[in-house]
Amino acid sequence: MMSKALERREKLREDLILAAERSISAGGLAGLKTRELAREIGCANGAVYNLVADVDELILLVGSRTLALLDAALSEAESAGPASPTEMLVRIAVAYCDFAAENLELWRALFEHRMTPGKPIPEWAISDQMNLFRHIYRPLATLFPKRSPDELGVTARSLFSAVHGMVLLGLEQKLIAVPIDALRREIAAIVKAMAEGLAR
Amino acid sequence: MMSKALERREKLREDLILAAERSISAGGLAGLKTRELAREIGCANGAVYNLVADVDELILLVGSRTLALLDAALSEAESAGPASPTEMLVRIAVAYCDFAAENLELWRALFEHRMTPGKPIPEWAISDQMNLFRHIYRPLATLFPKRSPDELGVTARSLFSAVHGMVLLGLEQKLIAVPIDALRREIAAIVKAMAEGLAR
Repeated sequence: MMSKALERREKLREDLILAAERSISAGGLAGLKTRELAREIGCANGAVYNLVADVDELILLVGSRTLALLDAALSEAESAGPASPTEMLVRIAVAYCDFAAENLELWRALFEHRMTPGKPIPEWAISDQMNLFRHIYRPLATLFPKRSPDELGVTARSLFSAVHGMVLLGLEQKLIAVPIDALRREIAAIVKAMAEGLAR
Repeated sequence: MMSKALERREKLREDLILAAERSISAGGLAGLKTRELAREIGCANGAVYNLVADVDELILLVGSRTLALLDAALSEAESAGPASPTEMLVRIAVAYCDFAAENLELWRALFEHRMTPGKPIPEWAISDQMNLFRHIYRPLATLFPKRSPDELGVTARSLFSAVHGMVLLGLEQKLIAVPIDALRREIAAIVKAMAEGLAR
């Protein structure tokens, strides 16, 4: 059984992560202030660093929750229609677009966060990220049964990066601003074209 | 004939833009300090704002130079091989990747710069950006002669965003780090697949 002190620390740590998530969701990474989080969860400023090692770890823990939500959204998209691998890839790509649009700041934080120079990303955070590639890998393996795992990995990565670029610039109110429905259609068309083109 | 005063201002303004370009090239947007630029070109701090309206304008002027260099690189790629539109699109995409790798910080600045809130991007800067889409638009128009300019515009935008995503995540030492030669091969394969898939 956990001691009362440990239980309390666990609870406070959870509160801290949720407070950081709300803060990033509202104002992006730039708006994250540990001083404000400490006040919100009712602990001293310095006590935050008894709960997490540093701000990098806190941001990665929020990222881990974001990736879990994304994972659930992609799993749902996988089973939400025909099992044809091309159609599945299209559904996954559109679900990725929707997730980014609905969780814009949390999604951006996944890509904008930079570790303090010289500090590597911890293994658990890398494996959280890599784990999501299985959603793309599986239908590609069905589509291209003769390709090696390495080749499939490369294609999965390229496909993800291409869709990510379309979502990124499509949601950006900068060079290219696209209504979300148009963006979903474009992504579906391009992913279908890539899958069919790769199969030739 | 320009007055001596105007000539001197023109020269200083050019010096300022080049100094800003060197600074961004070395340390990214985050390292840009007008105080240091002023010292470098030998004028008072405040005098910088006789040369450009504000830092946004200065960054956009540097961006304009970057876009002109990119324009030249893409033009060269266009004519550096067979006129087949698919092969041309592949060469343009690979040239975009090479340009980004060779001018990493200047290229990043094009996408990372945010105007001061409430200030729109000036028309000339938007048209500098849009002008580059012709490199993608032209081969697409050859490839799909029956599509309307609007449809071609949408496809050009999607294709660009997809390639941009592959370059962005490929050059990033984060989620996905890829050696440049492998990245070029992946981009070529995906662009070819998209062009062939879209043509079906």
